[in-house]
Amino acid sequence: MSQAEQLLKHNVRIIDLAADFRLQDTSAFEKWYKMPHACTDILREAAYGLVELNREKVAQARVIGNPGCYPTTVLLGLAPLLESGKQLVDSSRIIADCKSGVSGAGRNLAVGSMFSEASDNFKAYGLGGHRHQAEITEQLHAMTGKPVGLTFVPHLVPMIRGMFSTIYVDILPDARNTDFQALFEQRYAGEAFVDVMPAGSVPETRSVRASNTLRIAVHRPDNGDKLIILVVQDNLVKGASGQAVQNMNLMFGLPESTGLEQVAVLP
Amino acid sequence: MSQAEQLLKHNVRIIDLAADFRLQDTSAFEKWYKMPHACTDILREAAYGLVELNREKVAQARVIGNPGCYPTTVLLGLAPLLESGKQLVDSSRIIADCKSGVSGAGRNLAVGSMFSEASDNFKAYGLGGHRHQAEITEQLHAMTGKPVGLTFVPHLVPMIRGMFSTIYVDILPDARNTDFQALFEQRYAGEAFVDVMPAGSVPETRSVRASNTLRIAVHRPDNGDKLIILVVQDNLVKGASGQAVQNMNLMFGLPESTGLEQVAVLP
Amino acid sequence: MSQAEQLLKHNVRIIDLAADFRLQDTSAFEKWYKMPHACTDILREAAYGLVELNREKVAQARVIGNPGCYPTTVLLGLAPLLESGKQLVDSSRIIADCKSGVSGAGRNLAVGSMFSEASDNFKAYGLGGHRHQAEITEQLHAMTGKPVGLTFVPHLVPMIRGMFSTIYVDILPDARNTDFQALFEQRYAGEAFVDVMPAGSVPETRSVRASNTLRIAVHRPDNGDKLIILVVQDNLVKGASGQAVQNMNLMFGLPESTGLEQVAVLP
Amino acid sequence: MSQAEQLLKHNVRIIDLAADFRLQDTSAFEKWYKMPHACTDILREAAYGLVELNREKVAQARVIGNPGCYPTTVLLGLAPLLESGKQLVDSSRIIADCKSGVSGAGRNLAVGSMFSEASDNFKAYGLGGHRHQAEITEQLHAMTGKPVGLTFVPHLVPMIRGMFSTIYVDILPDARNTDFQALFEQRYAGEAFVDVMPAGSVPETRSVRASNTLRIAVHRPDNGDKLIILVVQDNLVKGASGQAVQNMNLMFGLPESTGLEQVAVLP
Repeated sequence: MSQAEQLLKHNVRIIDLAADFRLQDTSAFEKWYKMPHACTDILREAAYGLVELNREKVAQARVIGNPGCYPTTVLLGLAPLLESGKQLVDSSRIIADCKSGVSGAGRNLAVGSMFSEASDNFKAYGLGGHRHQAEITEQLHAMTGKPVGLTFVPHLVPMIRGMFSTIYVDILPDARNTDFQALFEQRYAGEAFVDVMPAGSVPETRSVRASNTLRIAVHRPDNGDKLIILVVQDNLVKGASGQAVQNMNLMFGLPESTGLEQVAVLP
Repeated sequence: MSQAEQLLKHNVRIIDLAADFRLQDTSAFEKWYKMPHACTDILREAAYGLVELNREKVAQARVIGNPGCYPTTVLLGLAPLLESGKQLVDSSRIIADCKSGVSGAGRNLAVGSMFSEASDNFKAYGLGGHRHQAEITEQLHAMTGKPVGLTFVPHLVPMIRGMFSTIYVDILPDARNTDFQALFEQRYAGEAFVDVMPAGSVPETRSVRASNTLRIAVHRPDNGDKLIILVVQDNLVKGASGQAVQNMNLMFGLPESTGLEQVAVLP
Repeated sequence: MSQAEQLLKHNVRIIDLAADFRLQDTSAFEKWYKMPHACTDILREAAYGLVELNREKVAQARVIGNPGCYPTTVLLGLAPLLESGKQLVDSSRIIADCKSGVSGAGRNLAVGSMFSEASDNFKAYGLGGHRHQAEITEQLHAMTGKPVGLTFVPHLVPMIRGMFSTIYVDILPDARNTDFQALFEQRYAGEAFVDVMPAGSVPETRSVRASNTLRIAVHRPDNGDKLIILVVQDNLVKGASGQAVQNMNLMFGLPESTGLEQVAVLP
Repeated sequence: MSQAEQLLKHNVRIIDLAADFRLQDTSAFEKWYKMPHACTDILREAAYGLVELNREKVAQARVIGNPGCYPTTVLLGLAPLLESGKQLVDSSRIIADCKSGVSGAGRNLAVGSMFSEASDNFKAYGLGGHRHQAEITEQLHAMTGKPVGLTFVPHLVPMIRGMFSTIYVDILPDARNTDFQALFEQRYAGEAFVDVMPAGSVPETRSVRASNTLRIAVHRPDNGDKLIILVVQDNLVKGASGQAVQNMNLMFGLPESTGLEQVAVLP
């Protein structure tokens, strides 16, 4: 954000992989990132770079906040249920139980990211609050037009890359006849990078390793009033740089999947 | 179960590590284990071997059904909230998001348990129903005296041993002043193998590796109406053979922790 | 081999990823693969499909024995020292200490390939003899024109893919002034898939993950009489299917790296 | 070493788990540890704490240099062949190809020890020289009474703990009738913490996990002139703290295995 004004002056368009342009709420930004925002005017014009939710705005934007990895899974997992004021599930009591590979913590030298600490281990973290929670709730609010209630618990998985979100929502009484499988399939029918799995399927992170695809499965146990949405992605691709490329393609009028059909594994 | 009658005739007391004496509901047994029960009369006298919930009955029992690994975590995670007809949380909408190391699947040769399949991967399974769900709900029913609603999703973690359950419950309006931390601490104050962590703590599976200890942390984000209970255990010890030894100690009048204070790691 | 005759009759050229056309010595074949060879006449015309050693023969061949993974690393690690009757190192006392990821054992359901057995573990195997030893020694014999002495010990590494061979040879007295680094660089200068690292470098398997590149480093501690050659490859690409594609490209007059410049990671 | 003089003055006996008292050759110490030795007089009286080689000296010593993890495996793997001036194998051309789990690098925050770097990867290191080489050669020199030639290559295995050394030696012509299996069995017959495996066995690191046992297998392929010694240990126990306890027991007249028969796994 410290360079944004200069870059824009020179007609450089910005896709920010840091978190400077993800949160419109600057008080939330200051709370979680421990610094004041350096250019709130530029922030106001920034688009949230989740193409599948925000395609038109991204295409026109000068500044993109590239989404966080957890938000990408939770927002795409919930959009077919909540966007456009839909009254299908109870938006006041959403649970997102999320699991990330160790690369999600970045390349900082931290004890918890060492092999001998993270290997053969599983833990939760961020129970006291996680910066991605603010990002998710702000976007859900924008999506539904009203405040939402989200319980979000991230966990750390002993694997390098991959992210798995298990989302639990309550189906509203009037929506019990909905064909949720069809709803999801139709919502993402034209999307190159969102794959709604056939009914009854269960995703695994390896199926999207080194790919920009986010994969969703929808389950409704015993046809009851709980809906479970399972979402997987590669946190380093669709959850980060792949999504940035997707944004760039859109901003520059290129086919959206340019450079994303076969993603190399970094050594 | 095929040998139980003979064993009892010879005054041998039984601790069954298979699942033959876990479910009192024989129709559920037949549904999940695909066979009729061989000795329903013996089943009726069997005790469910979760010592912390059932100490007196275990001490007297001739036959013990040693609990499943997932049920151990979920039942001990919920008991302080639900037992004795307590009205603290909504028992009709419990969510248990559970994660197990690969040894939880046993030593069967299955493709999904091979190194090259399970390593660097995370997945859910059993969405269409898991035999442990019947075991948990039967015990929760017994605990609360009424039917409960449980959404249970197991997941597979790329580690050898360890189990982590994240349980979500709604606090009932009349119970919002409860000190849940104190409630859990008092409930398990005298228990050698249940450790309630200090407020704000987050467990990790390695902290109980090769130990019979089950560790619990209680979180209530923003002092709201959701309670999150995090439970870890070693699925091969407290979730299996360690618990069997604990049952045996109790049945034979030995100190409950005999042989369990330092558990060797099997080569 | 049971189909080879029929295929050739129909002018189908064969690249065999099994081991049927790797060994010209049929008694060695019978010893290691426990069956008689089905078409020794076809075997005789088969080319050993290690392109970097055998380019002309491969280009003309109707039948290719695609090399084993261990032999690929050892043969390419030794060729600059031994081919064409060179007298640089003592070919009677070669040591190859080789390490393979678990996928090297194939997809057979074997106890030793299960996650809970192979993870957090390291072991040797095949000390009593390994079929790849026969393949390596036959090719070294062909390369040097005389029998060679090879001590070969394979080991199993808890990782999905990757192979690392540490090769120890004794420099002959008359060859002590050789610039071995330059020798290797010149030998492989034109090769698309063999990378000789700069002097002093040490390879790691992740640097060739999902790539058809085999990477070599040459070390001579204290400028003494031992030469250590370190070789890494992805056993599933250069050590198997990637090499088969490389052979196919050559057989059909395609550029050798067609389809091999960016190798997808299989889900 | 900076505290040694003070401690001795107060009659405190020292078992040093750092490397200050491992090398008698202070120029080698200065080369590898980049500092002058602070108390060369105390160093001279220090015993090298490998009990199986040095039992009497350890029992009397005021100062013990607790051996490095790699040296423990190589020295115990070679002692039956080299000690007491034996002329069984060529001590001028020993090869030790060693593999260590990540905890061998200690708990320093280093990029190479991070989960996302070390996992699913295998590499060599220290080709330009490793401090343990000086320690091993000094002890081998002491053992044989003459200089030895050692090629030592350490490698990093993606597992938390465990060390595997594959040692290659040439049998001398006059020693070809030796029963090496018997030689090793007899040498270590009375040792509590060295297990010579039956002929034909192959060790794996998990078999000694969380144990003070070092396990050895001896192989002579095709009854030829190469001897291969395979050695495994837990680098955190026999290769470090367990060995320190063993030294302490001996120094204080306790049974040597006190506290070492069942070693807890640290969380």
